[in-house]
Amino acid sequence: MVKMSTNTIYIGNKPIANYCQAIIQTLNDNDTAKLLARGTAISRAVDAVEITRNRYLDGVTVQSIEIGTEELRGSDGGMRNVSNMTIILEKRN
Amino acid sequence: MVKMSTNTIYIGNKPIANYCQAIIQTLNDNDTAKLLARGTAISRAVDAVEITRNRYLDGVTVQSIEIGTEELRGSDGGMRNVSNMTIILEKRN
Repeated sequence: MVKMSTNTIYIGNKPIANYCQAIIQTLNDNDTAKLLARGTAISRAVDAVEITRNRYLDGVTVQSIEIGTEELRGSDGGMRNVSNMTIILEKRN
Repeated sequence: MVKMSTNTIYIGNKPIANYCQAIIQTLNDNDTAKLLARGTAISRAVDAVEITRNRYLDGVTVQSIEIGTEELRGSDGGMRNVSNMTIILEKRN
């Protein structure tokens, strides 16, 4: 049986507690968790990582943080550049 | 004569263009620039880096990105945890 698990978490506009729980659950099933955030959700991604590490999970380290830019179509149909961030968390046993 | 230059830029609530200009000026005088941001300004720091790299300065790389938590006194006198981020940019000649 093939286990179809993924370790990617998209950070959006939900309450931070939702993302903390997603991180905990993902690191329960996987050795790493990959958080993706765009624009103003970048701050929320950092908050979710810090709250999870400080309150809920010991032994979680930040493996890498990368930032970049992508072009997205806005609601007016025009293209605009949006910053993004990828944080990879690692479970240390 | 001692040159008293610093390469640290604090990211706050000013327009992003101000921080882009601060990055350009700092990398004109130094090999590296250190950006510090807290809370919601973290997204703005990432935007400032990306816009500067894509529009204004070639050959600037991200040397490191670190995230953390600090305890600050809020306006109500109580302590609260705030996420922070430090981005170090490097000029590649």
